[in-house]
Formats: sequence, structure tokens, C-alpha cells
Amino acid sequence: MQLHKLYSSLAIRNNNKIVVLVIDGLGGMSHKDYGYKTELEYANHPNLDGLACRGTTGMLTPVLPGVTPGSGPAHLGLFGLDPISFNIGRGILEALGIGLVPGPTDVLARGNFCTVDEDGAITDRRAGRIPTDICEQRLALLRDIHVPQADIELHAVRDHRFVLRLKGTDLDGDIENTDPGTVGAKPKAAKALSPRAETTASIVNAFVDQALGRLKEQSTANALVLRGFSMLPNIPTFHELYGLRSAALAIYPMYKGLARTVGMDILDCGKTVSDQLRTLESHWGSYDYFFIHYKYTDSCGEDGDFLSKVNHIETVDKCVNSLVRLDPAVLAVTGDHSTPAGLRSHSWHPVPLLLVSPTCRRDGSTAFTETVCARGALGNLESKYLMGLLLGHALRLQKFGA
Amino acid sequence: MQLHKLYSSLAIRNNNKIVVLVIDGLGGMSHKDYGYKTELEYANHPNLDGLACRGTTGMLTPVLPGVTPGSGPAHLGLFGLDPISFNIGRGILEALGIGLVPGPTDVLARGNFCTVDEDGAITDRRAGRIPTDICEQRLALLRDIHVPQADIELHAVRDHRFVLRLKGTDLDGDIENTDPGTVGAKPKAAKALSPRAETTASIVNAFVDQALGRLKEQSTANALVLRGFSMLPNIPTFHELYGLRSAALAIYPMYKGLARTVGMDILDCGKTVSDQLRTLESHWGSYDYFFIHYKYTDSCGEDGDFLSKVNHIETVDKCVNSLVRLDPAVLAVTGDHSTPAGLRSHSWHPVPLLLVSPTCRRDGSTAFTETVCARGALGNLESKYLMGLLLGHALRLQKFGA
Repeated sequence: MQLHKLYSSLAIRNNNKIVVLVIDGLGGMSHKDYGYKTELEYANHPNLDGLACRGTTGMLTPVLPGVTPGSGPAHLGLFGLDPISFNIGRGILEALGIGLVPGPTDVLARGNFCTVDEDGAITDRRAGRIPTDICEQRLALLRDIHVPQADIELHAVRDHRFVLRLKGTDLDGDIENTDPGTVGAKPKAAKALSPRAETTASIVNAFVDQALGRLKEQSTANALVLRGFSMLPNIPTFHELYGLRSAALAIYPMYKGLARTVGMDILDCGKTVSDQLRTLESHWGSYDYFFIHYKYTDSCGEDGDFLSKVNHIETVDKCVNSLVRLDPAVLAVTGDHSTPAGLRSHSWHPVPLLLVSPTCRRDGSTAFTETVCARGALGNLESKYLMGLLLGHALRLQKFGA
Repeated sequence: MQLHKLYSSLAIRNNNKIVVLVIDGLGGMSHKDYGYKTELEYANHPNLDGLACRGTTGMLTPVLPGVTPGSGPAHLGLFGLDPISFNIGRGILEALGIGLVPGPTDVLARGNFCTVDEDGAITDRRAGRIPTDICEQRLALLRDIHVPQADIELHAVRDHRFVLRLKGTDLDGDIENTDPGTVGAKPKAAKALSPRAETTASIVNAFVDQALGRLKEQSTANALVLRGFSMLPNIPTFHELYGLRSAALAIYPMYKGLARTVGMDILDCGKTVSDQLRTLESHWGSYDYFFIHYKYTDSCGEDGDFLSKVNHIETVDKCVNSLVRLDPAVLAVTGDHSTPAGLRSHSWHPVPLLLVSPTCRRDGSTAFTETVCARGALGNLESKYLMGLLLGHALRLQKFGA
């Protein structure tokens, strides 16, 4: 039985509230410039440490040991879904990132403008990273292209990147990338990887043919490639699965989108973590489960900015007591994945987890750091088990078997 | 490959003896009235601590994180069987609990007497929890009911509860509960959930029709509902799987019954843990594997009686050295699940595990508590892996692969 179905089969309703604070990219790596500490070890966070003292800790492995997750699988894991079974395609994720709300029958793809020579061979896969306004101008040339059997939408993302959205009734995303992945090659025709995607592949090719005709006069960004054709995975909602009325307090579109895929209500929550927590407080009575997403730790990690990541951890720490005052039945603080400043990217390192609840077994943790959490009583769990721990501690799972 | 089949494929025989002491409901939860200690942390158990010093420790998760097991799945896990694949139904477990020995073709169900109004709608689902002797009187009214194709047995359990046993050759337990689960509704007809259970469902309905006719003159307990229709799962024996001659030293019928499902001999072992250990000693030469079950820790947890649970842990501790003197090749001390007094019920919390063997790798554990075991070298394992650890440390598993 799939894990979420097991948990779902045991779920019962009560009034116990669950709050999950996701500090994006929380985990770090020993950094030689800072005494071989991680950002979390270097930062001063007395309130999180205090929570650790009266809770239990552990580590979450987002997917599997050594595997670095994208934001999609990392969050699906936190939401109790096996990130290997439920794959969120790049096209869908890119769309979520700019605030689109894909419909269940839409096909989404990530597009790149590229530059080709007179023979159509790619000379620059990113068209010199044209500014976003040039991307917008190129998309304007393509917006009135019509093809049978689908409506086409084009949305600029940033630089040379855009999203292609196909809206229709019989579409399928099982299509190979048209991006050959190398200079010197020509963009490929869209090719269906299964018979059910044949129609969609021909729609894509009809669009691309017309688009290339309209772009060929340009000296750069005179062609396009598409990748990550995908549809929304068929994901059950938190309410269907667990009877949870759930809400997301996220500032960035992608995380709102990810929360929407599991049926969370998206609350308008301002721009800072203080705004988020005020919003939480004002909606406290209306939901059973709150997902709070804090982005900036990840951004600083991606920038390689150790000290800024430290600062953002300290900012979260200053706010966390206002969460505690709401007295949730279960409060979990963790990340979706690690983003060590030393790597300037997501990483595979497990993520520290802190869980506080009147029903928890205190484990003697005295701080909230990777080193402490790695010895915490919850052990090292795949992220997909977090949902069971939350529901268990909230007394929202009935006994399994007689 | 299923786990028990893997272990089975590697099993070899030798004279090394394995003893597993299961302290039922052993694990606890931090209790605010006792310095946020668990029962095991609060108790004084120098002998168990001494064993920890010369052994290795870890934690067992009975099913999966957050999942609270019933006694059936909790024990199947300890016996090396995946508790999700091998499900013991409520009817079977109830029968085991009163000492019945279900045959492989029997169907068992748990019955409740209830009270219905003149229209047949339930007014009290438990018939005012009639005393057991009234339950016996009602069953006496039903004992000579005959239906084609099955023999019927009725056994009082306690209060309004009884066990229905159908004996026949072509029966199947895949039948929906007749209990509507709510007052105001009428008991439902038994409905087969698969074609192979059609005959059994009609047998049940023929019985219930006659039973209702005989009960209708009563003012209370004048109807019945049935739930948990089930058959013995097809479980291989310890001898078939591992070549182990195995014996159970359990006082309560349910645990004898669970041990019998994996082919253990049930030894008559008196009423106290001292009696159990004397029995063990006198049968020492006849078996390879001994399962000793200590019940009272769980009962006290269910009663919410923290200090009595502490006392019972201390009682076990005083006896444990007589086990050690027998010098088993492997001695494991653990629980089937946690029963924190603070919850008055089974819980999902992992269970401490202690393993002592001349072949173990001592891990520096200095006590037998949840906090120490959570940091033990065995890590946090699903209970179903215990069997492999026992066999491995007893040198009863040959090398896997070349």
C-alpha cells in the first residue's frame, strides 16, 4: 500500500492543530571559513534551541541518501507523498513559479529562446541570456499563433525563459524535449513518447513551425526549444486524504502553487515572516494544518552568502515564539532540503527537524542544529514520513489493526 | 522478495538459543507530572541498565512512523512478518483473546449485543454494557440455532461482547460489518465484499434472522451486530521459516494465540514473571527460541497509572538476571509498542530495544531508557527487522550471495 493511502486509511478528525514551518534550504554544510560550522550551527537562535529542549528532533532525508531534490519533490515529501511516485514536471513547476494555476487537462512546458545559424543549428542555447523585456518582445510576435485542438498561452519567466501552456481536452505531456541540449545541433521536433501524446506532439510541432517562421528575421533569440512537457500529477488533497482543512502561508508563487497541488487554501500573507505569522493568527480558527514557507534562507544559500543565511535564520528565530503562543497541538520546524552556502545550490544533505507537542517524547536535545538533530530520537527519516508523525502526535491517526 | 522469505532463505540451524522478552507497552511519553520522564526513565532498573552496558541498543518502530499498532500487528512485526502484509482481523484477535484456537477454515467475528426499538433501530449500541452473565444468558437463547453449511459457536467475552465462530469448509471472511456504527440506524445485513464470501454472508444472515426472532422479547440486549469478520492469515511457522523450535511463555490468552499463529508451542507457565522464568528454565533444552510476554506494563499504561507501570518495570528488572544466567546466545528485551500512561492507550512512539550477545558490537549504552536507546548503535528500525538481528547474532543466517 502506498504510504499516503495507509495514513489516509487511519486518519480521523479532531480539533488538534498542526503547524509546519519550512525554512527553505535550511540545512547547511561545514564551511571552512566559519570554523567548519554550518549556517544553523553558526547562527544564534535561542528560541529554536528552547523548543528543541522541550521537543524531539531528527533528520529528514528529502528523497533518498545522496539525492538532491528540486523544490517540487522536496515539498511533496513534506506533504506525505512519495516524491519518486509523484513527479512534478519542470513545465508545471516553472508555471507554478510564476503564479500560473495549471488546469488538470493543461500541458505545460518550459521554453528557452535560443540563437540558431542560417542552417538552423543552435549557436547559443540561451540566446545570450536576453533581458526579460526582449523575451517579452519575442513572445509578442508569437501570441496570435493558432493551432487546431488547443489554445496556446505564452508567459515570460526571466531572461530567455518562458512557459508554454497548452489548453485543450485531450492533451498529454508524455513528449520528449525539443532541446537537443548542445550547440551545433538543431532543435528537435516534438516526439510523443506514448501513443496518447501523439496529438499533443503534433500541436506542439504546428506551433513551433509557425513560431520559427516569425522569429527567423531576428539576429539573436531567433528560435526556441521546449523541455519538461508535463501535466499536473493526479494528487489527492489534504482534505480528501486526512480530513485536514489546510492553509499555506507562502510569499513566493512556486510554494503557493505546490501547496495548491495538495488542495491547501492559499492565504494572502504579506511580505515578511511577521506578516505571515499575523495572517496565521487571524486564520487560526479556520484550519487544522498550516504550512508556513520562509524563502530567504534558500536564496542566500544559492548566492553563496553564508552570513546572510545566518541572519535569516536569526530572523525566523525571533518570530518563532509568536507561533508557540498559539499553542498548536504539533509544531514542526524543518526545511524542504539543504542549501549550503558553500555549494551555492540545493544539496542532498538531510535536513534538521524539530517537533514539539504535548504528546512527544522529549529526547534531551539541547539545541536546534544539524549535529544535535542527527542524534535526535526521531532518527533519520525520509521526508514522506513527516506527515505520519504530525498526524500521530496530533492524535489524528486511529490504531492500525486489532 | 518479502523480508521473512529473505531471512528464511538464509536460515541455518545450530544450537544457539534466542530469548526475546517482550514487555508489553514498554515505551512511554514524557509525563509532565514526573519531570517529563517516561515510565522507563523514571523506574529504577539496574539489571537492565547493566545489560545495556554490555550490549547494544536501538529503537523499534512497530509499523511506520506515526502509526499506532494494535497487538496483532505489533507482535507480527516482532516475529519478523511485515505487519502491513499480514493483517490479523478483529474477529480472530478477539477469539485469540479468549483462548480460542481458530482453525484455518473458520470465520470469526466480534459480536456486540445492542438494544433496538420496535422498528429495529439501534437505541444503545452496547445494550447498556450488560454484565457478562446477561451476555451468557442471551447467548444461551441462540446456541441451538442451526443453519446449513456451517457450525456455529458463540462465546461470551465480557459485558455485551461475544465471539461468533463459523466452522465449515468453504467459508470466507471478506464480509462487511453489520454494525452501522451509529444509533438510530438498523443493523445491516451481512454483505459479501467479494464473490467468494457470498455463501458465508448468507449463512451469517440466516443466523442473524433467527437470532433476532429469539431476542425480540427482551427489553434490552434484544439484537446484535457483528464486525471484524476474519480468518487466520496464512502465516508460515517459525519452524518452516527459520528451522527454530520455538516456545511462548505468555500468561494472557491473546499473546498465546498470537504466538500460536507462527507455530510456537505454548508452555503452561503460571501467573507471574517468576513462574514464567522457572518454566523457561525447565524447558531450556527443548527449544531454540523463547518468546516471553509480560503484560502488566501495558495494562497500567492503559489505565493511565504511571507509577504502577514503573513498578512493573522494576519487577521485570528484578527477574531479568535469571534469564541472563541461562546464557542465551542472544537476549533481546523490548516491547511490542508503547503505551504511555499519559495517553492511556497504545501509541506510535518507537519502542526501546536492548540486545545482548557474545556476537554483538557494544555501543557504549549505559542505561536502558528511550533516550539512550534512541542514540543506540542499532538505530531506529521497523520491528520486522528484529528477527533478522536475532538470527544474525545467533549465527543462524548464512552469507547472502557469493
